[in-house]
Amino acid sequence: MDADVPLLIPEVNHEHLGLLDTQQATRAGRSGYIVTNPNCSTIMLALALAPLHHKFGVESVVATTMQALSGAGYPGVASLAISDNVLPFIDGEEEKIEQETLKILGRLQGTEIEMASMAVSAQCHRVAVTDGHLAAVRVKLRSKASIDEVSAAFASFSSLPQDLGLHSAPARPIIVREDSDRPQPRLDRDAGNGMSITIGRILPDNVLDYRFVALSHNTIRGAAGAAILNAELLIAMGKLK
Amino acid sequence: MDADVPLLIPEVNHEHLGLLDTQQATRAGRSGYIVTNPNCSTIMLALALAPLHHKFGVESVVATTMQALSGAGYPGVASLAISDNVLPFIDGEEEKIEQETLKILGRLQGTEIEMASMAVSAQCHRVAVTDGHLAAVRVKLRSKASIDEVSAAFASFSSLPQDLGLHSAPARPIIVREDSDRPQPRLDRDAGNGMSITIGRILPDNVLDYRFVALSHNTIRGAAGAAILNAELLIAMGKLK
Amino acid sequence: MDADVPLLIPEVNHEHLGLLDTQQATRAGRSGYIVTNPNCSTIMLALALAPLHHKFGVESVVATTMQALSGAGYPGVASLAISDNVLPFIDGEEEKIEQETLKILGRLQGTEIEMASMAVSAQCHRVAVTDGHLAAVRVKLRSKASIDEVSAAFASFSSLPQDLGLHSAPARPIIVREDSDRPQPRLDRDAGNGMSITIGRILPDNVLDYRFVALSHNTIRGAAGAAILNAELLIAMGKLK
Amino acid sequence: MDADVPLLIPEVNHEHLGLLDTQQATRAGRSGYIVTNPNCSTIMLALALAPLHHKFGVESVVATTMQALSGAGYPGVASLAISDNVLPFIDGEEEKIEQETLKILGRLQGTEIEMASMAVSAQCHRVAVTDGHLAAVRVKLRSKASIDEVSAAFASFSSLPQDLGLHSAPARPIIVREDSDRPQPRLDRDAGNGMSITIGRILPDNVLDYRFVALSHNTIRGAAGAAILNAELLIAMGKLK
Repeated sequence: MDADVPLLIPEVNHEHLGLLDTQQATRAGRSGYIVTNPNCSTIMLALALAPLHHKFGVESVVATTMQALSGAGYPGVASLAISDNVLPFIDGEEEKIEQETLKILGRLQGTEIEMASMAVSAQCHRVAVTDGHLAAVRVKLRSKASIDEVSAAFASFSSLPQDLGLHSAPARPIIVREDSDRPQPRLDRDAGNGMSITIGRILPDNVLDYRFVALSHNTIRGAAGAAILNAELLIAMGKLK
Repeated sequence: MDADVPLLIPEVNHEHLGLLDTQQATRAGRSGYIVTNPNCSTIMLALALAPLHHKFGVESVVATTMQALSGAGYPGVASLAISDNVLPFIDGEEEKIEQETLKILGRLQGTEIEMASMAVSAQCHRVAVTDGHLAAVRVKLRSKASIDEVSAAFASFSSLPQDLGLHSAPARPIIVREDSDRPQPRLDRDAGNGMSITIGRILPDNVLDYRFVALSHNTIRGAAGAAILNAELLIAMGKLK
Repeated sequence: MDADVPLLIPEVNHEHLGLLDTQQATRAGRSGYIVTNPNCSTIMLALALAPLHHKFGVESVVATTMQALSGAGYPGVASLAISDNVLPFIDGEEEKIEQETLKILGRLQGTEIEMASMAVSAQCHRVAVTDGHLAAVRVKLRSKASIDEVSAAFASFSSLPQDLGLHSAPARPIIVREDSDRPQPRLDRDAGNGMSITIGRILPDNVLDYRFVALSHNTIRGAAGAAILNAELLIAMGKLK
Repeated sequence: MDADVPLLIPEVNHEHLGLLDTQQATRAGRSGYIVTNPNCSTIMLALALAPLHHKFGVESVVATTMQALSGAGYPGVASLAISDNVLPFIDGEEEKIEQETLKILGRLQGTEIEMASMAVSAQCHRVAVTDGHLAAVRVKLRSKASIDEVSAAFASFSSLPQDLGLHSAPARPIIVREDSDRPQPRLDRDAGNGMSITIGRILPDNVLDYRFVALSHNTIRGAAGAAILNAELLIAMGKLK
């Protein structure tokens, strides 16, 4: 969360790479850049929010995650702790999602990132799934949008990595499913070779404006694949040689 | 959801049994009464909201459930469907929670129940747990309350079944836990012989006012035990002989 | 188990296709042939035993299976039945394994299959795994063989489908692993595109001669892939046009 | 496995406490005795074999275990290792079962235990179950016994702890179930407050004489409860004051 280090999701905030010039100025004597991966749950949430935020503005977001075991690394969670159980606590996770989302969706103003002006609430849970983080999300938008417009914003989302044809960039960063019982971790985590997130159950919400369920492969889009896509973007932009 | 049939949770809305007089007037020729159990997830949510609603007023509630397999009866969910997976859809469940909660927390006005004036949002998921429904909940209150007041409202909640000393009534309908990683289905579902719900992770929320995690044994407090407690209350009130 | 219908595993008993001539003679007026897939657990066991039986003769075999949920089809096993549990009963499974193995490993004598002369004991269990049947196996051999010879018999096993280069035939029908904790369903079921079985923990046994653990992808090698390989073999032999 | 230290299962080998006199003689200067608990899987197997061995003699036994997560202690097995999986390896477990069973079922001859003269084969697996070890067992008996005699030997088994009315001693050390799908870990582990083992699926076997499936609560009968029952026996015998 250092001010001059971008938390990069290539489809969402490639403009933040402008911070690298700042790094060179302030961290003199160092060659190379520091670019970091956001938390795996933040990647899913920020990628889901990006098209809504760009088109309609997001005023507030309420996300409840059900996260896979592989997100805890190895050995991670004890099998006895999670067997026939759900854990309602992942150390530091709720805070990370609430803070990183604001930075990733913020805008580069001169040499600084202005945090996005939205309220983010995260409650995080560990469930007995090998791979694939799920999030139940509600959003309140700044400008009015029909449910079809929300759905279209997700489905049509495309960005610089797609334009550049980066090798690891999925054709569609967000896949929208109409089936009432999707997305599901086991069935949808490998969509787009694990680099697409899947969104379903887009519905009007009684408290905020809309709700939906998002799914992402936490060790591909959320970790290893994300790092590779970051590197591919840096190379394509001439920042990494 | 018939207008003259109470959805009874003895600790929450025993006043609704006044509807039984209406039933006798309008359903002439029938002996006995109709009293029904709410949905198992609604019982947990309404029981958790009751002390907050009575003390501070609840303006809106956002609940995300992670529900156990036994809630689907037998044979219920196919093992192949839930293995290494989470299902983001339980047919009719979100609608039931959103509607029943308004009725249960409503007030009997003359011969009718006036629905509670609050917004309820529910997203429901099935997880690979045998027993114990979990809900991640955010609430917005009508009057200001400190986090200690919220916690105390939960912990001190007691009602007619406790006053009457009904056999199946738990000493404490709501158990508040301070540990950061509770409640958990396997560890907390049997609290109060399965008749207490357990609440933890009470925290300020960035979007609504407070958030917490609630847990209830879905086949005891949520079904069989609930029916017995209903009967015990009806007997104690002389409505059932 | 009809006498003139081969239970075909292409690598094990392609000679049994000689029965098709008998079928034509006795089931006059019918075009086409009847060839059936063995039970998915039998395929794994017979494939594992084939190289031992051909080289050393198998006198008796004791197999204890831990079978995946997908073997029961859909909806199959109720999630509530298998959650936090093992089921020690699969209807008809033990009998099928005990009988089919004798037929598959039997020899075509004229127009009939002479059952293999060995004793087979099977105990079958359902475990909470999506795909991949595991079997703990002990064997008593008719002629003396060192543990290295047993291991080499598995690893070097190759048969007609490999010679013919059939499209679905794995390069190695049996993969031998030396690691002490393999095979495992999740890690090894996709070996050889799900068409290879994996054998590990080959050790001397105190009661029979040797023991080992075998694993097979029950819906690929044990069902769909098996049917395709059967068809490929029939086409290559000019029996199917 | 020290020669003068009994591996005690009160119902099976209380005679081995005669070794305590030997301990006093040879470990001079020490007060107190050393009595140890066998491995949790051995306890189940030895308890199941005891009535057969005493009545008919056991010549050989082939046991294949499916062991619960709690047997590995805490944190024990990584959840990611066991999720959607079975592990065919528990370090040292097969050897322990094979050796300890011989000692427990052996006879005290003077100041030494003569190992039981039988062949024991164990293959051990870890499955995704919280509590309750399951074993698929085949036995070859020294003298002829009908299946009814085998079943009756299990069901009527009773020993010194039952005679003494020790507090933790279950009324029936072995419960025989006739249902074709029992025992099951989740349904049967708490039988006799976790101190009874449950045996089902008693059937003739094609390779050895009989087969059956046994289940024991590994942390009660297999650990904590076993230690308490040992202490109760020592007190009752005046060895512990």
